Amino acid sequence: MPEINDSNSPINLWWQRDDLKFHDNRLQLGQCDLTTLAEKVGTPAYVIRAPRVIQKLDALHRAFDQVGLDHRIFYAIKANRSPKLLTYLASQGKCGADVCSPSELVHALSCGFAEQNISFTGTSLSKRDIETLSKFDRLRLNLDSLSSLERLGQACPGREVGIRVNPDIGIGYSDNDLLQYSGVEATKFGIYLDRIPEALAIAEKYQLKIVRVHFHAGCGYLDRELDQLADVLNASRRFTELLPDLQELNIGGGLGVPHTKEDSPLNLQRWADVLAGTYADSGLNIAVEPGDFLIKDAGVLLTEVTYTEQRKDVQFLGLNAGFNLAMEPAFYGLPCEPVPTQLSTAEINHYTVVGNVNEALDKWAVNHPMPKPEEGDIVALINAGGYAASMRSEHCLRGDVQEVLLLD
Amino acid sequence: MPEINDSNSPINLWWQRDDLKFHDNRLQLGQCDLTTLAEKVGTPAYVIRAPRVIQKLDALHRAFDQVGLDHRIFYAIKANRSPKLLTYLASQGKCGADVCSPSELVHALSCGFAEQNISFTGTSLSKRDIETLSKFDRLRLNLDSLSSLERLGQACPGREVGIRVNPDIGIGYSDNDLLQYSGVEATKFGIYLDRIPEALAIAEKYQLKIVRVHFHAGCGYLDRELDQLADVLNASRRFTELLPDLQELNIGGGLGVPHTKEDSPLNLQRWADVLAGTYADSGLNIAVEPGDFLIKDAGVLLTEVTYTEQRKDVQFLGLNAGFNLAMEPAFYGLPCEPVPTQLSTAEINHYTVVGNVNEALDKWAVNHPMPKPEEGDIVALINAGGYAASMRSEHCLRGDVQEVLLLD
Repeated sequence: MPEINDSNSPINLWWQRDDLKFHDNRLQLGQCDLTTLAEKVGTPAYVIRAPRVIQKLDALHRAFDQVGLDHRIFYAIKANRSPKLLTYLASQGKCGADVCSPSELVHALSCGFAEQNISFTGTSLSKRDIETLSKFDRLRLNLDSLSSLERLGQACPGREVGIRVNPDIGIGYSDNDLLQYSGVEATKFGIYLDRIPEALAIAEKYQLKIVRVHFHAGCGYLDRELDQLADVLNASRRFTELLPDLQELNIGGGLGVPHTKEDSPLNLQRWADVLAGTYADSGLNIAVEPGDFLIKDAGVLLTEVTYTEQRKDVQFLGLNAGFNLAMEPAFYGLPCEPVPTQLSTAEINHYTVVGNVNEALDKWAVNHPMPKPEEGDIVALINAGGYAASMRSEHCLRGDVQEVLLLD
Repeated sequence: MPEINDSNSPINLWWQRDDLKFHDNRLQLGQCDLTTLAEKVGTPAYVIRAPRVIQKLDALHRAFDQVGLDHRIFYAIKANRSPKLLTYLASQGKCGADVCSPSELVHALSCGFAEQNISFTGTSLSKRDIETLSKFDRLRLNLDSLSSLERLGQACPGREVGIRVNPDIGIGYSDNDLLQYSGVEATKFGIYLDRIPEALAIAEKYQLKIVRVHFHAGCGYLDRELDQLADVLNASRRFTELLPDLQELNIGGGLGVPHTKEDSPLNLQRWADVLAGTYADSGLNIAVEPGDFLIKDAGVLLTEVTYTEQRKDVQFLGLNAGFNLAMEPAFYGLPCEPVPTQLSTAEINHYTVVGNVNEALDKWAVNHPMPKPEEGDIVALINAGGYAASMRSEHCLRGDVQEVLLLD
């Protein structure tokens, strides 16, 4: 048996935590032995541990409460819209749902979220989108352009709305350019400050009451980005000061989780302090729309080793799952680290871990230390709870996958 | 009306051809007026003109014939697996199907391709994959690793097989790193030259007859890459010389189409000359597996303008289709250029064209000259025939889309 928890081991178990760790050399997620689960349900399989999501929700609520901020949490279902997960979350009553398209809205409703607990912030809304949205009078609707505000006003004058604004400052996980939502170049999201007078004029024309301001500063931010968050919040005050009917400030999502051993988790206490630093005495309700933060590390993708083989000077390890089941490693540079679910050998090699899709970029990891596996061994890809199933494609018809929600 | 065909116009219609062009300022694909079609079937809609695919197949056959090469063409269905398209192609009898997973194999069969006209070259095959494949004794099966050759040999000794090899030289569209399949660093595809003796030993052990060699040098190559193709073909001879039972050389896919006005189309005559230069007197049948080359420019994605709006110094133009419906522009740097289907104004602006998915990289074009549109105008995204529908996801539940096959 390898001394895998030995600090001299080339294998770094930085991601281990109370509910995801090796016990007697077998990887457990909550009460679940992942090897046994894979044998029973087959692979590939997305596995989500729901209590982990609840634990994160509780921690978020606590952080808000400790700084005395009125708040609401809307889970961003685009991170993972599993009906099982959504119904579970709706039944627990600890969050609403954040949706970004009319179909997501209907999906959230169909899974049990009440209309008034759903926040909608879409983009590039079509005429048909506006028609659909105008039927939902209790929906917490945020419009991200003057055009959609105008069209919504025509369709349902007199209602309460929110506007998505663009504070013109961006933050993102480790300066990843693909994940920038505001700042420097103009982006497609939100109304810029110079056009707020026009937004107010449109609102007046249709007697719309602008009760919410929404913005989304970036994606995947951690502790190291909290100073930038403070700057974004500060910039948002220029908007809130202009909107007399404001009740709620929605700071969007973007709260991240560690992806590598170099990342430190977001300190929620510090995060809440930053929020309170700008908005403690504002009288505004603070809304937040976490996706990844709640779900990403609650999920793994279970796969099976198909082969190992040397090619030139590289050891390849094949899995029966390709990048079509979790796109972030190939396309966003956000790894889903491969972890064997059983440690049955002391021989550790460095592998390039690849999937079963005929594309060169279908690679899970390069030069990655792992115990030498046998064909059929189970490998868990960690951090596959968010933006994996939800962006899944049938590319090469390699899309067959199970989905298991664990309640412990 | 704009002088859109005027060479001084900022709009460059480099992609116009006999069956995709403006007629009376309305964009026609074959006999089909795309504006009228969009009004009838709704948007977004993938539209494929099947006769364009046939025309390309005929051109390929002609090119082979002119240099006297025995040949077979297998359409790579991973580029577009529309059942309508596949059944049409199967019925025309001008190509077989190239598949890369057991599910693609079953799909091709279900659309009418005969088993002996299907070429299989998968990767990272699982035990279950091998079990499935071993049932298809007439399938033209190519194994891409020693491991899969061994396992296939165990499952069905004595059969004819092909091996995928890696010639260790890569080519790709415009040096795009994402599209390199061989060369420099070891890739997951194919058996390298140093391990061919082992492949032969495995074949002998299980009385497998290696009748085909397959390789895939890259992706999207055009005229400018033909010298590199010659080098790859030359390198492949080191494999063919070692395999005594060889009947067929399969040069994979990778034939490209122009994506920008800077690209020149692949000259099939030159391409066939390159093939004949190495393999004219080999006695081998030459097989090819084009995907994009046959289908990419036969298809467009019809979308609708949702809004235009200035943000900072940028004019944004929104469409009702996001990158989840055609991923190559956002992730591979291969544009699907937006083209209005109707030219109804002389005012031309430069737009950043964006989709309806809540992600910053959901952008179709930047600073792109287009006639000023009205909400609801139809915009065709060209070159959406290949790797658009087939890699489509339901991200943000923005995946609703029609699919129309035009037979003229």
